[in-house]
Amino acid sequence: MLPVPPTPAPRPISKDTQLCMSLAARPGNFGTRFHNWLYAALNLDYVYKAFTTTDLPAAVAGIRALGIRGCAVSMPFKEDCVPLLDQLDPSASAIGSVNTIVRSLSGLTPGALRGYNTDYMAVQQLARSRGLHAGQTFALRGSGGMARAVAFALRDIGLTRGVIVARNEAAGRRLAGELGLDWQLEGWQPELGDLCPDLLVNVTPIGMAGGPEVTELAFPVGAIAQAQVVFDAVALPAETPLILEARRQGKTVISGDEVAALQALEQFVLYTDVRPSPEQVRAAAEYARQ
Amino acid sequence: MLPVPPTPAPRPISKDTQLCMSLAARPGNFGTRFHNWLYAALNLDYVYKAFTTTDLPAAVAGIRALGIRGCAVSMPFKEDCVPLLDQLDPSASAIGSVNTIVRSLSGLTPGALRGYNTDYMAVQQLARSRGLHAGQTFALRGSGGMARAVAFALRDIGLTRGVIVARNEAAGRRLAGELGLDWQLEGWQPELGDLCPDLLVNVTPIGMAGGPEVTELAFPVGAIAQAQVVFDAVALPAETPLILEARRQGKTVISGDEVAALQALEQFVLYTDVRPSPEQVRAAAEYARQ
Repeated sequence: MLPVPPTPAPRPISKDTQLCMSLAARPGNFGTRFHNWLYAALNLDYVYKAFTTTDLPAAVAGIRALGIRGCAVSMPFKEDCVPLLDQLDPSASAIGSVNTIVRSLSGLTPGALRGYNTDYMAVQQLARSRGLHAGQTFALRGSGGMARAVAFALRDIGLTRGVIVARNEAAGRRLAGELGLDWQLEGWQPELGDLCPDLLVNVTPIGMAGGPEVTELAFPVGAIAQAQVVFDAVALPAETPLILEARRQGKTVISGDEVAALQALEQFVLYTDVRPSPEQVRAAAEYARQ
Repeated sequence: MLPVPPTPAPRPISKDTQLCMSLAARPGNFGTRFHNWLYAALNLDYVYKAFTTTDLPAAVAGIRALGIRGCAVSMPFKEDCVPLLDQLDPSASAIGSVNTIVRSLSGLTPGALRGYNTDYMAVQQLARSRGLHAGQTFALRGSGGMARAVAFALRDIGLTRGVIVARNEAAGRRLAGELGLDWQLEGWQPELGDLCPDLLVNVTPIGMAGGPEVTELAFPVGAIAQAQVVFDAVALPAETPLILEARRQGKTVISGDEVAALQALEQFVLYTDVRPSPEQVRAAAEYARQ
């Protein structure tokens, strides 16, 4: 691991400092450290702080009433906050899931709260950067909020043929139906022989640190061999068994920590209108992970 | 003026950092700078930020829903926030005016919002420290929120005889009536011959920097001569014409900047349960005034 650069000194907080925040059932420290590090490095008059709540409507009303500049939204609030907002960005409206709330500073309705989905935005950018394009096929394991963001992002760059493999039959069938994809019940290794997907995507806890399936492979070795790109949404560890096997086979990979870092960057840009350099983002993420 | 000590380095903000804030129609910078300076000096995991709002009920609901630790309340919200809170401290309930909201961390209702009036608390402390005691008489000019806090604080240490001099007849008569005091319409220098007050209190803008009456004396020189203590609630400048004349006559004085600093200190103690040293408070206030 590269050495973490020294933490820059923050600006003193004043009455004009903008507050950004997050709402999660169990707040972590990543966002608070990531954003505050970049605010200091870029000399921006912002401060970031994670919050939790047991009253989402009052929390969102408070965000609006207090003029809070932006708010990251985590489980279990991503869908419940949709009806509480004033506007939805296309990144959020199709999925019906918001992970970022931004206060409009101008336009027809200054002060309005607009919902975005930066997971969707990050997945689209990463998929394009790895050469994925219209007409390719994919298999995606999972049916939760992140699986929806990934599936819609892929559909919107033209990956319209694929299969959703999920253990939650209702959510899996719903997601597949919305996108005109096939659906397969999870419970065994997916059978992908006919589809022969160009892209394999895992959006389940398989391979996740601390989980019961930390050593498992989300797709068979043979399916990996036939794919061009392998995408694991698991961020911890970055090098899951699926990513390691894909690398071993020389495949192009997209790892969950890339998605996490890029979606946090897109949140940062939405809040501040400033785009940090890749080096600054790397340093902030390394500091934040400590 | 004494040199301001170097600003201590703040702790990095984490998910566990407590947020305190203020709500005012036109936020100033004093509170934000005062509290953050002391948090850093005392190595407390807190951050402070001033806010404004056009939707007080939603702002207070947000304070509750987001678990904000404490909130200073300024004009015009001090009375309007009373029905939005869960509990009132005696310092606020008699006056019907709250300048400090504190989140209960324990007790029967953790998470409840309790309203205090630290102006009342500060005035009581300062009045006692200058030897004011039951049975003494006073004349008080003013009938606004701060005048109410002062009058009730004096009543509650036993100063039950006095006169309210006010230009707002309704508010003046109401305040005098609630406390069983006399009332006199402002518009000329108060005639205090019969009462011969031990304490003179100004809670009007007379003598305030930037105001039209900056050079005026709130009480006649002769009344000052007969008083023991002179109290001017005007904080800027600390040395108003009234305070200067009282000092010239060798009277005991209470100045508005003492009230402002002590009420801010009492807020700090309510938020953190930590009482800074007088030297720390002095340094924080000097830093905050810059």
